[in-house]
Amino acid sequence: MEKSVGRLVSILYRKNQVYLNQGLKPFDVTAAELPLLLYLYKHEGVSQDALSNYTLIDKASTARMIQSLLNKGFINKEKDKEDRRANQIFLTSKSWLIKDGICKVLAGWNDLLLGELTQEQNDVMFESLEHMVKKVEALDFRIIGEKHA
Amino acid sequence: MEKSVGRLVSILYRKNQVYLNQGLKPFDVTAAELPLLLYLYKHEGVSQDALSNYTLIDKASTARMIQSLLNKGFINKEKDKEDRRANQIFLTSKSWLIKDGICKVLAGWNDLLLGELTQEQNDVMFESLEHMVKKVEALDFRIIGEKHA
Repeated sequence: MEKSVGRLVSILYRKNQVYLNQGLKPFDVTAAELPLLLYLYKHEGVSQDALSNYTLIDKASTARMIQSLLNKGFINKEKDKEDRRANQIFLTSKSWLIKDGICKVLAGWNDLLLGELTQEQNDVMFESLEHMVKKVEALDFRIIGEKHA
Repeated sequence: MEKSVGRLVSILYRKNQVYLNQGLKPFDVTAAELPLLLYLYKHEGVSQDALSNYTLIDKASTARMIQSLLNKGFINKEKDKEDRRANQIFLTSKSWLIKDGICKVLAGWNDLLLGELTQEQNDVMFESLEHMVKKVEALDFRIIGEKHA
């Protein structure tokens, strides 16, 4: 099998999950819950569906993690004033208090990965990663299944 | 927040999962089951624990996916002759039949991501990714929690 970006990315992702679960333990947050928290730091008041769309996590898992964050006192749910069937998610002060700590854990991963790269390698890598992210964000996934069927 | 490898890797990983779930649908394999299958193509006869260690997926989830692959007829379990408490996992002919198809789906993701990169960008990116993978594979995750506590 030739060199596979998918395989390398998948190793980095899974190790990052292990790292985050360890590093976030003192804050009582799991790696799985982190994308929701990070999104909420920037977009407080979004709906549960918007969170699910952003994180690409299915609605059932998103609901489970929201329940867990609720139980731990990191978020509040409020009925949307314009659409009573929808909920808006807000952060509690407990979430804001741990934000810096979480960011430090995240920065630690960066330092770990990039520590020994030259500035040039670093730049080209970010360029390439950002290029790939742009490509996949523009993808229409509905046609992929048909192509390989 | 500064540029984060973790965030970019996580987007690439999650989009890859969506892509794989679509692309693998004709083969009745899920993105979550794929790492197990790919490992077994290279290491048939390993134990369930070895699979779990390799994929960094917890034992409960590994057991669930193995059950699913068993139900779909992709693998067989046999008692280890030397350690009767352990199982060895083998692939069925059904797994070998879809191997080329699966590899095509994986190669498609590579082509998609790398399509417009120059050879130089491509080389530096693989070097950087491989450098990072080497670093994380050498990590001792047990000390991370203490560092941030």
